[in-house]
Amino acid sequence: MAGMLILTEADLRRIVPLDADAVACVEEAFAALATKAVAMPPILRLDIPEHRGEVDVKTAYVPGFDGFAIKVSSGFFDNPKLGLPSLNGLMVLLSARTGLVEALLLDNGYLTQVRTAAAGAVAAKHLARPDARTAAVLGAGEQARLQLEALLLVRRISQARIWARDPARAAEAAAGLAQRLGIPVEAAASAEAACAGADIVVTATPATVPILQADWLQPGQHVTAMGSDSEHKTEIDPALFARAVYVADSLPQTRRLGELAHAVRAGTARADQAFAELGQVIAGRAPGRTGAAEITLCDLTGTGVQDTAIAALAHRRAVAAGAGQAFETTGPSGDAA
Amino acid sequence: MAGMLILTEADLRRIVPLDADAVACVEEAFAALATKAVAMPPILRLDIPEHRGEVDVKTAYVPGFDGFAIKVSSGFFDNPKLGLPSLNGLMVLLSARTGLVEALLLDNGYLTQVRTAAAGAVAAKHLARPDARTAAVLGAGEQARLQLEALLLVRRISQARIWARDPARAAEAAAGLAQRLGIPVEAAASAEAACAGADIVVTATPATVPILQADWLQPGQHVTAMGSDSEHKTEIDPALFARAVYVADSLPQTRRLGELAHAVRAGTARADQAFAELGQVIAGRAPGRTGAAEITLCDLTGTGVQDTAIAALAHRRAVAAGAGQAFETTGPSGDAA
Repeated sequence: MAGMLILTEADLRRIVPLDADAVACVEEAFAALATKAVAMPPILRLDIPEHRGEVDVKTAYVPGFDGFAIKVSSGFFDNPKLGLPSLNGLMVLLSARTGLVEALLLDNGYLTQVRTAAAGAVAAKHLARPDARTAAVLGAGEQARLQLEALLLVRRISQARIWARDPARAAEAAAGLAQRLGIPVEAAASAEAACAGADIVVTATPATVPILQADWLQPGQHVTAMGSDSEHKTEIDPALFARAVYVADSLPQTRRLGELAHAVRAGTARADQAFAELGQVIAGRAPGRTGAAEITLCDLTGTGVQDTAIAALAHRRAVAAGAGQAFETTGPSGDAA
Repeated sequence: MAGMLILTEADLRRIVPLDADAVACVEEAFAALATKAVAMPPILRLDIPEHRGEVDVKTAYVPGFDGFAIKVSSGFFDNPKLGLPSLNGLMVLLSARTGLVEALLLDNGYLTQVRTAAAGAVAAKHLARPDARTAAVLGAGEQARLQLEALLLVRRISQARIWARDPARAAEAAAGLAQRLGIPVEAAASAEAACAGADIVVTATPATVPILQADWLQPGQHVTAMGSDSEHKTEIDPALFARAVYVADSLPQTRRLGELAHAVRAGTARADQAFAELGQVIAGRAPGRTGAAEITLCDLTGTGVQDTAIAALAHRRAVAAGAGQAFETTGPSGDAA
């Protein structure tokens, strides 16, 4: 006999808000990636082109963690025509000691939103100037809005700008964020105008051609690019690699999926060039920003250690709060093939 | 709002027995692998050596199927010391049209047992002589026993022998199978004695050195090797490749994980050698057995299409029977990263 806990999206939204604990757990995960023998296999990817669908499976084991997550994320881009969200998925939390399923986190992608926004906060915490006050966000989707919210957890952001291709969406996001966060947030007329004078720029779009030009940037700015998570996506002008200190969430991944992959193709970075990873910066094993005049660029493709960290946090919180539904599964099985 | 069906191992044992339908659905899956644009990414594998644990994730999409399975299988080999089974896992069935989770199959590996045994039946149906009557099984675990049971679904097996390294286990398995299947089943004194005169030989062990020697085999015999599903496992003397017609479940997999990988290392097969796949034989696109005197060898490493096929069968049966528990998950999410 074995039991597992089933948590719905509603449960998870209640017990795992985007807060300082979420940022700390993702920060710890990145540090572990740089300092421990983390096992993080390449992403399993399945494409279903006839339905404009794609599925990713990510996992990572962090030594010392009681459990590890296996995350299934699906994106089916005709779903809105059916009145369904494009992005769905769940996480399975397994015991690192026994391999038994401890929890099913039926989050419909919510925990991914939280851990991704938290990674943006971690990047800014370690790479943006300590006195950063103005933020610009390119993109107006759910994740773009969460990125701004996350920045407020690590820097004293006093004003922000939002730009999106659709000005109405940008205006709506700006108004909603101003009310929610209690700071002035304006919709910018152009991406360039949004970036001018911003201390921190976050790109959070599904762009497939660069939306941020290198010559817009000024000394001292920090850029977090989190839109590129597959081979064809890119948000950043590859010329920025000649001007910025580049930091990857996971170098093997950004060489394949991130802005770095595009820069290598464009010839502004070398395929074998040594760059720091965010976890190394957190752990003090790589420098990151070394002066107030540098431009820093953090390339976030999304890593399995973030999923494992947020799933473990959700499980701890659920157990402490008595949340979710315990589910008995019956009977041991034999020696399967 | 979205709903999913949750099925436990007990539900699944009731509605998906090892029967002719299970064999037919796995046969159809192999045929699809050979004839359709099946998407079957490489297996995602995570190792946790400090707890002697390993996790595999498999998936496959078959065009025309309404859904596809993502299967998580864990093997933690210290579990028996804790009174737990070594092997566990579950399957997630997603809609091929929307990516939404349609069902969680909390089978603890049961469906893997069924689809693996069914693959043995499919191999024998298409490669063993039609007049095969005597079966030998090397191994006495749950899967070894199911393999014999599966053979009775496709050939008029009138007697069988079981061999295992532990004679007591072999005797126990033989007695149980004789009673269950209603045919004489004896425990053989040696693997060689088990194979002598058998029309079909199935190897179903976790062996890491060959247990079946090539010179034991006689013209007309069929061998199904289903134990090797990772790089270090092997059951078959590589010299058999010089004597037998070899058929893979999935050539890319058996080149990496199966008996073929060991034969290539031993020099009895070439890395680029063209071999038939089981699905091609089923679909009439490769010859398979062409005479009563040939020795045939089918190398089964386990494929994602089998998982997708058995999960789809389970879901259809569950819906038809009103089995399982409907589970509402709440609230659409936004555009996750």
